[in-house]
Amino acid sequence: MVDVMNMNLAEQMTQLARQAKTASRLLAAMTSDRKNAVLLAMAEALEENQSHLQAANAKDMTAGQASGLSNAMLDRLKLDDKRILAMARGLREVAALPDPVGRILEERTRPNGLQLKKVATPIGVIVIIFESRPNVSADAAGLCFKAGNATILRGGKEALNSNLAIVETMLAAAKAACPDFPEHAIQVVPTTDREAIKELLGQTAYVDLCIPRGGEGLIRAVAECSKVPVIKHYKGVCHVFVENSADETMAEAIVVNAKVQRPGVCNALETLLVDRQIAPTFLPRLASQLAKYHVELRVDAAARLLLPANYPKWQAATEEDWYAEYLDLILAVRIVDGVSAAIQHINQYGSGHSDSIVTRDPQLANRFLAEIDSATVYWNASTRFTDGGEFGMGAEIGISTDKIGARGPMGLEELTTYKWLGIGSGQIRK
Amino acid sequence: MVDVMNMNLAEQMTQLARQAKTASRLLAAMTSDRKNAVLLAMAEALEENQSHLQAANAKDMTAGQASGLSNAMLDRLKLDDKRILAMARGLREVAALPDPVGRILEERTRPNGLQLKKVATPIGVIVIIFESRPNVSADAAGLCFKAGNATILRGGKEALNSNLAIVETMLAAAKAACPDFPEHAIQVVPTTDREAIKELLGQTAYVDLCIPRGGEGLIRAVAECSKVPVIKHYKGVCHVFVENSADETMAEAIVVNAKVQRPGVCNALETLLVDRQIAPTFLPRLASQLAKYHVELRVDAAARLLLPANYPKWQAATEEDWYAEYLDLILAVRIVDGVSAAIQHINQYGSGHSDSIVTRDPQLANRFLAEIDSATVYWNASTRFTDGGEFGMGAEIGISTDKIGARGPMGLEELTTYKWLGIGSGQIRK
Repeated sequence: MVDVMNMNLAEQMTQLARQAKTASRLLAAMTSDRKNAVLLAMAEALEENQSHLQAANAKDMTAGQASGLSNAMLDRLKLDDKRILAMARGLREVAALPDPVGRILEERTRPNGLQLKKVATPIGVIVIIFESRPNVSADAAGLCFKAGNATILRGGKEALNSNLAIVETMLAAAKAACPDFPEHAIQVVPTTDREAIKELLGQTAYVDLCIPRGGEGLIRAVAECSKVPVIKHYKGVCHVFVENSADETMAEAIVVNAKVQRPGVCNALETLLVDRQIAPTFLPRLASQLAKYHVELRVDAAARLLLPANYPKWQAATEEDWYAEYLDLILAVRIVDGVSAAIQHINQYGSGHSDSIVTRDPQLANRFLAEIDSATVYWNASTRFTDGGEFGMGAEIGISTDKIGARGPMGLEELTTYKWLGIGSGQIRK
Repeated sequence: MVDVMNMNLAEQMTQLARQAKTASRLLAAMTSDRKNAVLLAMAEALEENQSHLQAANAKDMTAGQASGLSNAMLDRLKLDDKRILAMARGLREVAALPDPVGRILEERTRPNGLQLKKVATPIGVIVIIFESRPNVSADAAGLCFKAGNATILRGGKEALNSNLAIVETMLAAAKAACPDFPEHAIQVVPTTDREAIKELLGQTAYVDLCIPRGGEGLIRAVAECSKVPVIKHYKGVCHVFVENSADETMAEAIVVNAKVQRPGVCNALETLLVDRQIAPTFLPRLASQLAKYHVELRVDAAARLLLPANYPKWQAATEEDWYAEYLDLILAVRIVDGVSAAIQHINQYGSGHSDSIVTRDPQLANRFLAEIDSATVYWNASTRFTDGGEFGMGAEIGISTDKIGARGPMGLEELTTYKWLGIGSGQIRK
């Protein structure tokens, strides 16, 4: 009985993946104008079908309440007017971005006259796995589509009706705007069976990439079972290192911004490293600012001695604190001896996401920029800038802390690969 | 008992991988001049230690003969003078190539003054898994090192003594040329236990990439068990499509070259597609050439009717022939109706390696170039050009038919990744 169920699921996932691959061939050949027309039609359809989308979403909300989802989960699940309009706006923004397909990345002519061109192409079929927010359906599918890829979406099981309604609305609009639009360009995994993910990520003949978005647990589970390449980021344990020569006013502004401006996101500061000589002046003045924002500190022994006696909330840091992604108003603080110790700490405990040095010394800054093995390394700037929008990429599908495929914010260009074209006049190999 | 063994092996592989990661931090900061000096010293040491290397190789050869290795295997295993000199020459060539690390791939300044640079960096730790040829040790480690990566080599079990001797010789020379050279920059997996590969490829905290080189079986086994990214190519089922408007003399030369010049390599032609109208004139003239080279044909029904009655060796093609990588003087031949059918055939049966169209029609050529989903697509040129040397990359570590990481020939640049540098003057996020 279980065997038959599994076989059916496997066949179902094979079919989904094969359909996506066939659609991807057509998407790869679609002109920018047609893709943009489709995106604009999709945006309009989402706006026009608000009540339909909200009816589907209401089913998910009712089921979610009945099954005891937390208020935070229910809030993420909800498709209110604002979120629907944001999805539509997102699709229009993607339409306005330059097409990443067809860019000539390199060009050379060999001595035998063979002309070589390295050209950006779609990746093919991309599986997006995400958690409860249904708006990710439109955002991710829109970006993947503009880059010429077919998308298979697997959202949270509690959002299935919402995700299906969003994608059906988008596909109907696409079909109306462009009659030969391939209907399998965007698909939603139609089951909430957990085994479906494993089956889908075993389709190496059809699926080219998986991008999981969500908590560390989800991402680790996906990476563990996937046979197709995965681009991921587990967590953002971001650092600021305040070096002895730092402008203290600048350092204070950067640390406060990186920690408190939006503490729940992956590019927020988690561990502050302070150089030993600057610590006695810098830490007390910083602490008086952090206290205003109710930031709880986890301090090493040296930092503890410099903390004002009346600092409202702190405790001694343990080894675990150096690895922690708090996503909250909590900051680990460690005193280090110079840039070498800072680099050592960050490469050992960090997550390869975003790290910053504040210093007036260009030599030390350049060492830090060169030796920190992270997706984004800053000099005299907040870690909060690691973001597709802030990088000028437009929308982003996520931030990669991987090294193979894409690293850092992933916009449209990062959703393409390349191929080589060799244009000859009869060249043969000697 | 087994458990303890496995634990020991796991610990051993963790140590190997951790040491490699530590070494990789130092390699990433090494200047081009020092890397080149090290490569030249390694080349000289290989030449000077020929007898030492051959003594180690003799142990492998004796054991190989005793265990009944085939003559072909023994030939691949042998380290003769010519092969040792070739390894040394290879390292000198790599020293002469430009350093791929530190290239600025993109640069932009944001409206807030934040200067962003996308800079090429080493990948980190690369595991190379290969079969019997010990010279791969020097070739692969040299390329990885020049790109700033630490290498862990796992060759065929029959070549362990040879591989160890090569790497020891290279490391001793590196240490002499550069006293702070990290001794774990190049390591050989010191056991022939098959479980070691699985353990090593589970070290996601330390290993950044695995490149398997060898037969399809090896590569599939590696891809199946790896938890780290793998860049691979399974096989080269390469096509030439002779379109109706083709210059028949050019088409004949390209087909003959692609098939017979070196049939045992991955970029050799395996399936010829001939457009229906040109087939009656083209196939007979081509057949008379292929007969001279004793090429066996596997023909579909339509091609069979056009084959000269006295063609020496042929049989009817089956479905399996369209998937076959013969690596031999065998050619599958199919008559198709136009470029659409050719594209359909290649995308369905091909391996995404190298495919070529011969045509005088630029529109059809451009459709073929755009729609064939392969690493390298040619117009009026032989598929045999897919090669790092022919592409002007210098040496190559392999040819990727993957889409994530690198696609096509992989030279030094393809052994790097990138990071983003953000250079500010106190910017914080609003």
